[in-house]
Formats: sequence, C-alpha cells, structure tokens
Amino acid sequence: MLNLAVFGAGRIGHVHATNAASLPSIRVRYLVDPIESEARSELAEKVGADIVEAAQVFADPSINGVVIASSTDTHAALLIEAARVGKAIFCEKPVSLDFATVETVTDAVERSGVPCLLAFQRRYDPDFRFVRDRISDGTSGPLEHIVMHTRDPAPPPRAYVERSGGMFRDQAIHDFDIARYLLGEEIVTVYAVGNCLIDPEIGEAGDIDTAMVTLTSASGRFVQMINCRRAPFGYDQRLEALCAHEVLYVENRPQRGVLIADADGFRASPPMNYFIERFSTAYRAEMSAFIDLIRTGAEPLATIRDGLEAQRIAEAAVKSVATGLPVRIGSNWRP
Amino acid sequence: MLNLAVFGAGRIGHVHATNAASLPSIRVRYLVDPIESEARSELAEKVGADIVEAAQVFADPSINGVVIASSTDTHAALLIEAARVGKAIFCEKPVSLDFATVETVTDAVERSGVPCLLAFQRRYDPDFRFVRDRISDGTSGPLEHIVMHTRDPAPPPRAYVERSGGMFRDQAIHDFDIARYLLGEEIVTVYAVGNCLIDPEIGEAGDIDTAMVTLTSASGRFVQMINCRRAPFGYDQRLEALCAHEVLYVENRPQRGVLIADADGFRASPPMNYFIERFSTAYRAEMSAFIDLIRTGAEPLATIRDGLEAQRIAEAAVKSVATGLPVRIGSNWRP
Amino acid sequence: MLNLAVFGAGRIGHVHATNAASLPSIRVRYLVDPIESEARSELAEKVGADIVEAAQVFADPSINGVVIASSTDTHAALLIEAARVGKAIFCEKPVSLDFATVETVTDAVERSGVPCLLAFQRRYDPDFRFVRDRISDGTSGPLEHIVMHTRDPAPPPRAYVERSGGMFRDQAIHDFDIARYLLGEEIVTVYAVGNCLIDPEIGEAGDIDTAMVTLTSASGRFVQMINCRRAPFGYDQRLEALCAHEVLYVENRPQRGVLIADADGFRASPPMNYFIERFSTAYRAEMSAFIDLIRTGAEPLATIRDGLEAQRIAEAAVKSVATGLPVRIGSNWRP
Amino acid sequence: MLNLAVFGAGRIGHVHATNAASLPSIRVRYLVDPIESEARSELAEKVGADIVEAAQVFADPSINGVVIASSTDTHAALLIEAARVGKAIFCEKPVSLDFATVETVTDAVERSGVPCLLAFQRRYDPDFRFVRDRISDGTSGPLEHIVMHTRDPAPPPRAYVERSGGMFRDQAIHDFDIARYLLGEEIVTVYAVGNCLIDPEIGEAGDIDTAMVTLTSASGRFVQMINCRRAPFGYDQRLEALCAHEVLYVENRPQRGVLIADADGFRASPPMNYFIERFSTAYRAEMSAFIDLIRTGAEPLATIRDGLEAQRIAEAAVKSVATGLPVRIGSNWRP
Repeated sequence: MLNLAVFGAGRIGHVHATNAASLPSIRVRYLVDPIESEARSELAEKVGADIVEAAQVFADPSINGVVIASSTDTHAALLIEAARVGKAIFCEKPVSLDFATVETVTDAVERSGVPCLLAFQRRYDPDFRFVRDRISDGTSGPLEHIVMHTRDPAPPPRAYVERSGGMFRDQAIHDFDIARYLLGEEIVTVYAVGNCLIDPEIGEAGDIDTAMVTLTSASGRFVQMINCRRAPFGYDQRLEALCAHEVLYVENRPQRGVLIADADGFRASPPMNYFIERFSTAYRAEMSAFIDLIRTGAEPLATIRDGLEAQRIAEAAVKSVATGLPVRIGSNWRP
Repeated sequence: MLNLAVFGAGRIGHVHATNAASLPSIRVRYLVDPIESEARSELAEKVGADIVEAAQVFADPSINGVVIASSTDTHAALLIEAARVGKAIFCEKPVSLDFATVETVTDAVERSGVPCLLAFQRRYDPDFRFVRDRISDGTSGPLEHIVMHTRDPAPPPRAYVERSGGMFRDQAIHDFDIARYLLGEEIVTVYAVGNCLIDPEIGEAGDIDTAMVTLTSASGRFVQMINCRRAPFGYDQRLEALCAHEVLYVENRPQRGVLIADADGFRASPPMNYFIERFSTAYRAEMSAFIDLIRTGAEPLATIRDGLEAQRIAEAAVKSVATGLPVRIGSNWRP
Repeated sequence: MLNLAVFGAGRIGHVHATNAASLPSIRVRYLVDPIESEARSELAEKVGADIVEAAQVFADPSINGVVIASSTDTHAALLIEAARVGKAIFCEKPVSLDFATVETVTDAVERSGVPCLLAFQRRYDPDFRFVRDRISDGTSGPLEHIVMHTRDPAPPPRAYVERSGGMFRDQAIHDFDIARYLLGEEIVTVYAVGNCLIDPEIGEAGDIDTAMVTLTSASGRFVQMINCRRAPFGYDQRLEALCAHEVLYVENRPQRGVLIADADGFRASPPMNYFIERFSTAYRAEMSAFIDLIRTGAEPLATIRDGLEAQRIAEAAVKSVATGLPVRIGSNWRP
Repeated sequence: MLNLAVFGAGRIGHVHATNAASLPSIRVRYLVDPIESEARSELAEKVGADIVEAAQVFADPSINGVVIASSTDTHAALLIEAARVGKAIFCEKPVSLDFATVETVTDAVERSGVPCLLAFQRRYDPDFRFVRDRISDGTSGPLEHIVMHTRDPAPPPRAYVERSGGMFRDQAIHDFDIARYLLGEEIVTVYAVGNCLIDPEIGEAGDIDTAMVTLTSASGRFVQMINCRRAPFGYDQRLEALCAHEVLYVENRPQRGVLIADADGFRASPPMNYFIERFSTAYRAEMSAFIDLIRTGAEPLATIRDGLEAQRIAEAAVKSVATGLPVRIGSNWRP
C-alpha cells in the first residue's frame, strides 16, 4: 500500500486524486487545499482522504508521494519542501511563472534525488506515444518537420488569463514540450508572432489570443505551431509529423461515433471538449507511471528538467513577440 | 474517321453524343429524335450533326455505329434494324420492358454478329473497375458477400415512374448487373420486399419507392441491396465487397473538397448529384470502349446478354414482391 | 449500500462485477461460479466478494440483486429462483436456447413482479441512444428503413459454436433487438439466408458463418442485416437509419486517433476489437441502470420480454434458412 | 470566333492550348516554341495550330490574345511585345526571376491597357472559390488566420531546380498569392526558415527543400505556410482558414473513391498526383475567364500586379532565410 497526498481540489486535482484512488493498493491519505469548498469536501469523501495542512503531509513519514495540482504560485515552495523531506513528486506544469525560480527549483529537486514526474500528460497519451514509438523504432523514417495546432474551445475568463502567465507559458508549453520530445534534440531558434484578434478582454489583460511560432532545432529541422484561444468547433489539438517514409497525424477524438447526413452534407461529431476528456486516458497512464516511479524507479516520460526546457522556449517566444525578432537560445539562455 | 448516329436528344443522349464528338477522329454524323425541341437543335449544332429520320441512318453505308439513347419503347426496333443492316450498336438499358421481347432481340443481335455494347456504365467507372480488378487478380482474396446501396436524391415525377417499368427494371437493374459482374456467376434465388413509404404518387402509379433484395448465387454466396427513391443527402450509390483478405468499399464522390467545421461538428460536402455527374468518367470510358469495339473488336465489358440476365433478376424481384416468396431462377426461367 | 451477487466469473461476468464494484455504495457481496479457477479467485479478490454456492445467495436476505452472467444453460433456473425469492435481476441474453423455456421463464419473472433488466447493452451505448433519441424527438423525421452490419473479428472456436445456439440466437439477436427498439413496433416477416463460407469447422458444428436477413415490420417498413463471423479488419458493428430528414450512421470506433499516410494512401486505425472494448461505456451505463432500477424502480431500457421477442425473430430466422421461405410471425408464433 | 496564339509546347502549354481549343468559337491559330520536338508537333496537330515564330504572332492582326506558357526567361519580352501591339495576355507566373524586371514589365502592361490575366490557377479552383465566396459573403465570419500546406510529391530534377528561381519564387508563390487573396489586404512582415533536409542535390543547386513561413498582414492577422519538395504520400496542397464562425478546410482530392479495409486499418486513396490533375478544373475555368476577359472585359481573378505582389513576398522570404530575420515590406520595398 502506498500513501499519497494531493495538493489542490480544483479540476485537475480532482482528476489526479480520483485516478490515484482507483489504482490497486494506492491510498489518497491527504487532500490539501486552503479554500474551504463543497468541491474540496466532496473530493475528500470520494477518495477517502483527510483534509489537512501542508505541514502535516511533509511531517508524516507514511506518505510516499505528493501530487502537486494546486495553483501555480504554490508549486515552487511545495516542490522545495517535498524535495527536502524526500517525498516522490508528481507536479503539474509550470513550476513557476518566474524563470529564475524554475531554474532554482529544478536544481534543488535534481540535487535532492527525489523521484519527480512532470505532468506533461500528452507524452502519456496513447496516440502521441504511438507516434513517438513509430518514429523511434525507425518505421516512419527520419522525422523532417512537425506542425501542431492547439486551439482552445473558447477564450478563458479574464481572471484566468491574468494568473496564467500568458498563452505561451500556459497553453503552448505543451507544444514546446512535444516538439523537444519528438525531435529528440533542443530548440535553438524561436520566432513567434502574437496578437489579440478574438477577445478584447484578453488584450486588456495584457495577453494574446492568437499566435504562430516557428522553431528551429539544433540540427536544422523545423516546427510550426498554431496556438489560439478559440476554435469555432471546440477543442483542436492536433499534430502532423512528416517523416521520410510516412506522415503521422494525431487527430482530434470525436465526441460521438454517429455521422449525420442531410442536404448540407455529412456531419461528423465535434471533438471531445476539452482536455480533461480528451486526455483522460493519458491522465490515468501518467498516474500509473508515477506509482511505478515510486515503486520501481521506472524513469518518467517527462522530468522537471523537461519542464524547464519547455519553459525556456516559452520565454523566448514571449521575447520574440515583444521584439519582433527571432530569439536564439541555448542551455545558458535566460529571459 | 468513324461516323456515328445518335438516337435520342435527351439527357443521356446528350452525354453520349458530346462524349463521342470529343474523341479524335469520331464524327457524330446524325442525330435522330422525333420531338422537335431546342435541346435537339442545340445538341445537333454542338456536335455538328444533321437531324434526320431513323431510316436515313440505316440506309447510309458511311455510318459505322449507332448509339441508342432514345426512349425505352424504341430500343427493340432500333436494335433489330441495326443488327439487320450491320451497324455496331451502343445501347442504353433496358432493351425492353417486356422480357419476351428482350429475349427475342438479344437472340437476333447475337445471331447477326454485329458488335454490341450494353451501356451498364458502372462497369466502366474507375472505382468499380478498381474493385473488380483487385478481386480478379487475387489481391483481395475470394469474394464472400456484397452489399449495395442505391438511393436516388429525390422521387422522380409520376410521369417518369409510369414509363419506367418500375424501380427494379429502371434503377436496381444496375445493381443486379454489378452483382453478376463481381461474383462472376449467375444468381439462382431472388427475394425482394418493396413498399411505397416515401412518395404516395409513386404508389398511385403502381410502383414502390423502397426495396430490399437478397440474392443467392449458384455457389451459395449472398448479395444484399437497398434501393430507394430518396436519400436525404442526395445521390447514394455505394458498394461493399467483403473478401477473405480485405473489404473494398466504393464510396460516394463528394461535390466539393471543402470541409466546414463549426459547433455542430465537421461537415463534408454532399455527394455528386446525380448519376450524370457521378459517372461522367464512366460515360467517357464507355464511349471510348465502343469506339475500340468498332475499330479493333475489343470485347465490351457488358453485352446485350448481360442486359438480359440482369433483367431476368429484375423480373424475379418483381415477382417476389408480388408473391411474398423467394423466386428460384435459371437460364430457362422467365416471368 | 446495496449488496449484489454475480453469477459467472468469465469474460462478461468480470465486466459486470468490476463495473458494479466501482459504483459508489455498491458491494459485490458474492461471486458464484462452480469452476475453480485463477480467474475466479482474482475476480473475487478484486471486487472483494466471497465465493459461494448459489443457494447461499438466494437464502441471504441482505442481497438486493443478482447479476446472471454464467453459462447460458444456467440462466433459466437462476431466473426462476431469483424471481421466487424476490431478488432484482440483471440477466445476460439469452434466457435459454429453448424457446418454450424462454416463454415459461419470462412469464414467471413477469408474474413475480421482481425488477428485471435484460442485458442488451447496445441500447445503453451513447451512440445508439443518440440515434434513438434523435428519432424519438422528431429531429430526424420518420424512420423509413434500417441497415445493420455485425461481423465478428474472427470465427469463434468450435466448442463455442456448439454451445452458442447458432449465429442467429448468439450474435444476431442484438440486431433483432435494435430493429424492434428503433422501429418501435413488432416484426411480422423474417427472411434469412445463411451459409458456411468462411470456416468449415463452423459448418461441421452445424452452424452458419454468413447470413443476410430481411425483416418487415407491422407497418411495412424494412430492415436489412448482414451478419458474419469474420471481417478482415476486425469487429464491424454499424447501423444506418434512413429517416425522412436525415440519415444516421453509427460508425465503428477506431482503436487509435492516428492517421498514417504513405504512398499507399491514408490509413486510419482498425476499429476497437472487440465488443468488450467497443461497448465498455454501454456496460457501465447498463449496470448503473440496474442500480437505478433497484433503488428507484426506473424502467430499464430492455426487459426480459424484449429478450423473448428478439429471440422469437431469431427462431424465425433459423426456420427461414432451413425452409428457404420467409416466415410470418406474431405474438402467438413459436418455432 | 477568337484567335489565340500559345507560347510554349511543354506540360503547362499543353494544358492551356487544349483547354482553349475545346472551347466553342475559339481557335488556337498559332503555337510558338523554338524547340522542335514530337510534343510540339503533336500539340499543334491536336489543336489545329500552325507552328510559327513569335514575330508572326505579333504581326497578325487576327490574333486576339496570347497565352504565355513558355520558359520563364521568355515571359518578360513576350509580355512587353504583346502589350506594345495590343494583344490580350494570359501569362504563367512568374513574370521574371528578376524583381526589377517584374516591376518594369508590370508597369508597361498596365500602362498599355491591354487585358491581362495572371495564371494563379488556384483562384479559379472551385474549392478555393467556395472558401473565398463564403468568407466574402459573411457566412464564415471574419477570417482570423490561415494555415497552408504545399508539398510536392517528389523533389524535382536538379536541372529544374537550377532554373526555377528557388522554392519560394517557384512553388510558394501560389501560397503567397492565396494569402493576399483571402485576407484581402497586403502582407507587411515575412519570416521564413528554410533548409535542405530531403534531397542533397537541391542543396548543391543552391536551393532549399523545406521551408516554413510566417506572414503578418497590415491589420495584424497571421498566415503560416509549410512548403516542402516531398510528401511521402504524393501531392499535398491544403488550406485551413479559421474564421470567427467556422473553419474552412480545402482538402486534398483523392485519386479514387475506393476505401480498402484490412487488419492494418482503413486505407483511403492517395491524393491526385500532381497539380495538372488536381487543378484540371481550375485550368479550364481560368481559360474560360481569359476568353470572357477578351470578349466582355470581365475582370480576371488575378492580375499582373497580383503576380508582382506575390513575388515581392517571395523575395522577402528569400531575404529572411538569408539573414535569419523577419523582413518588413511595403509597396516601396524591393530586394
């Protein structure tokens, strides 16, 4: 039996807590969330956890691992503390909106030697893994370039935007991560354009809602990304990997398997809406991987350093939009 | 230079005349249609033909072949006459609505030895030929069963229905032909149900608008057909051939290559509407085959005997609906 | 807290037991299966059930309902006994391979007044329900005809075939049920052809592997079914409902959302393989419906009488193949 | 009757000459091509043209228009001469590989007042027009961004590459044009990356085979382009236009309408291969538009100035790859 503590009783905390609780021989012992709410009580009851303060988690030697799914501004301190007391860590991205803090925390966690999985769930999605495996085993031939589309179903509320760190750090960071993951090498040039074309409130909050990004890798390969805060049909999350022998497309997953045909044509269902549903399998696999990491030390698909490197690209994209120029980056580059 | 005469200045006569005229070294010398109309004048001018009586065609030794695309009740006499004077024949189905006449004419044409192509254009469609070739060359493995859908975009006018010979002889005859063509053997049992579910006028004209047919072949393989006078999205003409190694589907061809996505989902274009457009390539290939038949004797894909055999199945389907029983047929069976 | 007992530790018993156990406030108290096996022990442990004899289940007043997922030859006796002692019943189809027994048991269960859900899971599938709802609420316009395809991925082992009751009672019974369900009326004529075209072992076991069925409803509407023990690409389970305003297609669900493009074209993933995976959502919904039935008396989507009526059609199909003739049925018809 | 002269007996000259010849009341009077070849003789015979020198065309007052489909290095002089003598002009892109020449010739043609259609055939394609019309009439809502993919089926021969002016001027120029056409405004910033990743011979010829381009329009909207000299599945030519109410996708057109299903999944046909086939309808429409331009003065969809503006973007892309920086352009910018 392994004992876990979950930080955060919001949407994504709910996903991770219930996934953990459904696994055999896993107990969600504690739930930590400073805000008293019905959601918190219900989640605690559902998974059989006690609602406690963070200090109690870190002081309890029976706790094997912590799941950090609380608000972004709490991540860094929780990571540091977990590393200090030696708890295995499952952490939602981003580590911090401040890049220097990300670097400090990453170093601290790595030095501590605690097992740590960064929750880039797309790496655990069966479709993305299929693509990755097929490229890795040579079936597809050398990967030549990548195109990614990430569009949210609708602009987020202004309050969310204001705390999000901006579209690159909040949304596009998953694409930056997948670019590195599939290419198997680092990005050296980032060019991004961004604008507020859809929702004026996003502009007033100082953010953009539409962006296009071009990445160049160390070996001279290219990635293009289209990022947007709205798609008229719902959540749009696709990838196209052009390899020498074949092209691999990760398509959207439809809500329904029913096709409707009338005088306007053949209508397929909109895609699953939204990431919680689209990546439900990935979230379960990710939690299983965390358990394996604790039990057997099996390497996670994404580490805290992967989080740092994806965020470095996000920082470069922010700078590129601000300056109108491409940004060259390397392991020493910081914003 | 080959000289042709075309009988019939209607929709399908227009297709065949213009296809013939567009071929190198082919001259559409005569157009025969008893009804004076703008369509007739325009077609004659377009292809450079003289409008004449049938007798002139058959008396003119420069005419190498005749295209019979006039009304069904004229086919038999034109076939007999063309066979008598030795003109190559391209004939639209059906030969006659009276099965005994079909038999008499078929025998006469065959005895005359004139080259004769029966216009089952589906056999000349690239998609159907692809399926046929892939089965014939063994790629697909043995053909085990067939499912076909034929639905018109909208019920035809009552006047058309009254002259059509009924849905089996008029529409389903193409499916009966394709069944024989792909199976490569004869049908021995026909069961059909039919009803007037869509357009009461069709029922008043003594016909059905919805039918389902089950065919059993000599070797015990099965075919199912769905035939209907309406599909809400337009013309529906599909085939599914289940073979031991793979399934082959002939799909509808979309009008446009544009997909539209909104909150209701992803909308593909309705199919081409209607057979004139869907089978435009087939009609051209069929006319080329007729020219090859005249020039080199190259065997046509469908003969007048194929017309007779398809119609025999249609007659059995009519009887099956009338009696509520399956009908066993053989080469001596007649209605 | 409701207490259930599950009969049968095989594939489908496993599905139902684990679905029940995952629901809040449901306890799978007993597992009954006469055959000692690792599967039985593991399932009992997984859901926390005791392995007991049937008698203990029926004698225990704390048991609220029984799930009958044992071998077909045990269903009738378990249904009779559960009805006698007043336990709510969830029963896998078929009730019995002997139609007279089905009638006797159905009458007994109905007379007893115990709540009883017959496990036609397709009625609980979100896609089939979407179709049903859209027809029921008038969106699609009147339903005019139905086409269904059910093909297994591969022929079952001979031992399975021998105990199955034959393809109509074992596999096609789901299609017969959906036909009644969507049409909302009874079937009055059944014509079926069947043959052993794929696997000679099935023929040696006295069964068929390929069948085509035509049903006519009381109001004169038609249904066509294609049933087969093999599809080259895996499990093929589709429906096409032609209505006056639109056509609704229940499509196969793909295994993966990855498209692969190379010189041979664009390749989409094979469908989910097999019914356990394809209908996993339906199985969960069905178990929830059973709990609702116990708790609130909410009517199930399928009753034991629906099982009887679907089986009546299956019996008529068997007779049609044997006689080569359509079979007219009514509420008094029996084989 | 209108008389035309066609310059160039190569692949595209063949398309335009035969399309012109197939139109009613159009005569292809002359064919001009300095290279004696079988192709030239056959084309002349097919369309009934005399093979003559350019001078004869310009001296013959019966010639109403010229079709310039000869090698790129001849375009400028032919345009100047046609403008001088007052012949209507149909001209293949590009006007010249030298931008200053493009400007000079454009000015000269415009000053002459001769009707002139620039052959950006994509504007005449029914699918692209459908998209354009649907945006223009307000159905789709405001256009927010565009993504385009253009990949050739296979790298061209080195000799072609050397004369082509490079991938941006030769291939991507169509995408630059469509960007302007759909946006309805000018491009002000161009960022491009390019590399030789596929075919070393292209690199030796000083060109690139893979490029990604980001365009920003005057009003701040974005366009992304993926351009490549190879796609593993054939010719890839797609567009995605995200508008406020819907997304419009111009898809590839399949070679066949047959789907093949086996254990590896469902395989759709590769796309039409290559532009001659994919845009055959567009080429016919374009020639009809040229005839309308001569006859009625109906404005063409693309003018010589559109050619100049698309090429300005191409020049900026070339510079961007060379400098690694985005290039700001305006109506006075030149390379």
